[in-house]
This record gives sequence, C-alpha cells and structure tokens, in this order.
Amino acid sequence: MEREKIKHLLDRRTIRSYTNQDISQEKLDLILEAGIRSSNTGNMQTYSIIITRDNEMKKAMAPMHFGQKMTTEAPVIITICADLNRFHKWCKQRGAKVEYDNFLWFNTATIDAAILSQAISTAAEELGLGICYLGTVTYNAKEIAELLELPKHVVPIACLSLGYPDENPPLTERLPLEAVVHNEKYKDYSEEDIDRLYAELEALPQSKKFCEENDKETLAKVFTEVRYKGEDGRHFSRKYYEFMNEAGFMRNE
Amino acid sequence: MEREKIKHLLDRRTIRSYTNQDISQEKLDLILEAGIRSSNTGNMQTYSIIITRDNEMKKAMAPMHFGQKMTTEAPVIITICADLNRFHKWCKQRGAKVEYDNFLWFNTATIDAAILSQAISTAAEELGLGICYLGTVTYNAKEIAELLELPKHVVPIACLSLGYPDENPPLTERLPLEAVVHNEKYKDYSEEDIDRLYAELEALPQSKKFCEENDKETLAKVFTEVRYKGEDGRHFSRKYYEFMNEAGFMRNE
Repeated sequence: MEREKIKHLLDRRTIRSYTNQDISQEKLDLILEAGIRSSNTGNMQTYSIIITRDNEMKKAMAPMHFGQKMTTEAPVIITICADLNRFHKWCKQRGAKVEYDNFLWFNTATIDAAILSQAISTAAEELGLGICYLGTVTYNAKEIAELLELPKHVVPIACLSLGYPDENPPLTERLPLEAVVHNEKYKDYSEEDIDRLYAELEALPQSKKFCEENDKETLAKVFTEVRYKGEDGRHFSRKYYEFMNEAGFMRNE
Repeated sequence: MEREKIKHLLDRRTIRSYTNQDISQEKLDLILEAGIRSSNTGNMQTYSIIITRDNEMKKAMAPMHFGQKMTTEAPVIITICADLNRFHKWCKQRGAKVEYDNFLWFNTATIDAAILSQAISTAAEELGLGICYLGTVTYNAKEIAELLELPKHVVPIACLSLGYPDENPPLTERLPLEAVVHNEKYKDYSEEDIDRLYAELEALPQSKKFCEENDKETLAKVFTEVRYKGEDGRHFSRKYYEFMNEAGFMRNE
C-alpha cells in the first residue's frame, strides 16, 4: 500500500522527447512555488532560477549543452544557480558586512540549488511533465553564465529541460540498494562485492551493446575511455574551478 | 485543481520534533528505493547513504552537529555522501583507468548527492514522516567522515533526520517568487528591488523578535553577526577545503 502511494516516485523516468504543447505560466509558477518550499540553509535562499522560453536563447545555449536536442526542443529550460549576490546586496543595504565569498558558501549554495532543482523536478513530474537534467551545465558554466548575464557570485549548478512527455522509455536500471546503503559505518567493497553488485548492470543487453558499439571489453571502459574521459574531466575541472574563482567563490583557498 | 494535486509539496514543513515511534526497515528501504530513482550523472550513482539508528553512534555524532536535538531524538539519521570510491573500484577491477579525483567530479557527485537527498526527503514526507536537513554536516565533514569510517573519495554532503512528526509548525516564510526567478536573463537587483523583495520578511513579528533578542538593528545583521559570522565561515571554509583535498578531490587545482 505504501508502495502504491509513492508509485509516481518509484516509476519515474527521465524524459528527453516532448510534445509541442507549451507549459502555461500559471503551471510553471506553481511548480516553482512548490520548489522553493524545499529546505534551504538558514532560509537565506541563496539560489536563483533562470527561465528560458525564447527560441533564440535556446539556440544560443544549445552548443553549451553539447547540442543535446532537449535544449532546443523542450518548451522550457530552467537553469538553477547558486546565488550569493542577492543576499550580499540585501546585507550591504542593511549595514551588515558580508563575507560569504568562500568555498564553504559556494558549496552550501550549490547543495541548496541542487535540492531546489530536485523539488522543482518532482513538482513538474507530479503535474504531468517530464524532465531531463542537463549535466553539461557545469562543463560550460562560464559560457552559460555569460549568456544569462549572471553577475559575480552567481553560478549555474543544475539545468532542467521540461515539457509534456512524448515518449515512455523503460525504467533505467540502478545498482541494488545494498550497493549504495551502509548501516552505521561505511563498509568498504571487496572485489567480490564489486563483482556481485555490478553483475546485473553488466549483464544487461544494452550494457553489452555499449561495449560492442564502442569496441571496449568492459562497460567500465565505456565510461572511462568514451563517455567520461580523464583528459576531458581534467580540462573541464580546471575550467570550472577557474570560473568559480572568477565568480568570487574561492577567496580563502 | 493542480494546486490541490501538489498540496503536499506546497504545504510541507521541516520537522524537528519526532514521536518515539521507530521507522520500520521496510518503510526505510522503500524510501531509499524511491530516492535512487532520481536522476544522476551518467547513471554512475556516485553517492552513498549511511544509515544511523544506533544510539551510541547518534551520541557520538551529536557534537559534530552542534548538539542539535534531532541528532539524538530522531529514530533515523541519514548521511548522504558524494562517493567516487565505489565507481573507482569497479573501474580498476575492469581494467579501466580512473581519473575522477578532481573538482569537477567532486562537484558533480555533490550535486547528485543533494538531488538524492531531496528525493529521499520527498518520499519520506509522502509516507507520513517529517525530515530536517542538518546543514552542520559540511562544517564538521572531516569528523563525521572519521566516525562513519568513510574511505578516501567519500565525503558527507547532506544529512537528514527522519521520524514521525510530533509538531505542526507554521509554514516558513519565503521571499516572493519574483525575488528568485529571472526570465531569459538575470535582472540584477536595484536598491528599490531589494527593499521591496525583503519587505515582507523584515516586517514579520518573528524577524523583529530576532533583532530584539540579538540586539541588532537589522535582520541582515542577525545573519552576519550572529547566525553565520564571517570569521566562522572562513574557518569552516578552510577546514572543508582542506578535507576535500585530503579526501582526494582537488588534484588538479
């Protein structure tokens, strides 16, 4: 019975194809209103939400998201940002000295922005929309920040495409719960644990297909040599760190 | 009608007082199962969930959370961690070279862990539980990591206390939606904007009470001089950054 009650959470799918139906402003506002009811540090709301509906903006944004079709095909793109700018401005106007321009607060605002993103996603899904996270938002955070005219102390953290679903994909596989849950203390993984916990994932026809298509012996190599290469990670990591520095979040480090 | 459908999201409250009813393992597993249905980067599931039920563990953890009563009074504490350790182990065992020990991946895993936390929170709330985020988890991340015996490349990101609600607090105020939403481009705030957007918050009886109790002229000063002081922020920021470095996430920077 409890399973039935949260079926919409247990059965959710990421949706990458949308019908051409637009999302009404009223519906979007309701979703955002639900989003900001999620918890945030000290009720400081150190985040901002940028709504993209304009086609020219979507076209300009598309290459920054590596041309993922959702960027231009979804009726709404939402970029959620860590934002210390507004809080700083309020403090300054009220004679309070602000010193939140450091790694801790960057991280706090990042976590709060991600929590907000997920609250927005859930509300959208409960109202019949489909969503997809565009993880590319951190790779090209600097370019996206320029396009959206983000001031200092505002950085993009998460990006969602939203629309009415035009597909019904199968449920994505996940590792068994025991692979990610630890009781009381972290129980590090033995070689046997890793073999057992990844067995189901590795045995999936689509995992084997990934290996064949990419000419790799193991699924892990598809990740490290094709999808998320070390050299790319290092490049984007340096770029992201530099941008955080420019955005004013690494003052103490 | 749509408002009615997501009423549980619009009306949610953080719950800090719990009855002494325990949470069954079956219910907790269902909540976690719903949690891991949330989106994550590349389906790599670079997170881990540590469950604390043991009273001795809670007592040891309490000072790390600045003695917040939820730490010892909630039946279950969940610490959600960014975890590259398991993925690295899998890769190494499959002959794949891993190089995810950088800032970008720390940040990616952080965002995914925060998304997971919120998905867990929503599932818990929909099944009648109350939750509270313990933001202190990043302040004392190093000590919490030691207590939970987290290996390298595993760091605490979010912490939740969970239990059956024993209070029904009023809805917390939020800034008006227009304060956090921008259409197409970020519209920076004028002095008038700040005055208008913070007026309602500042006029609340409880905001005035905060100022009086702390002998501060403005609510902003309650934040910067009492609740989140600059010197504390700098201290915890350095500590957090150093720990991230020790945990192996700052290799490129």
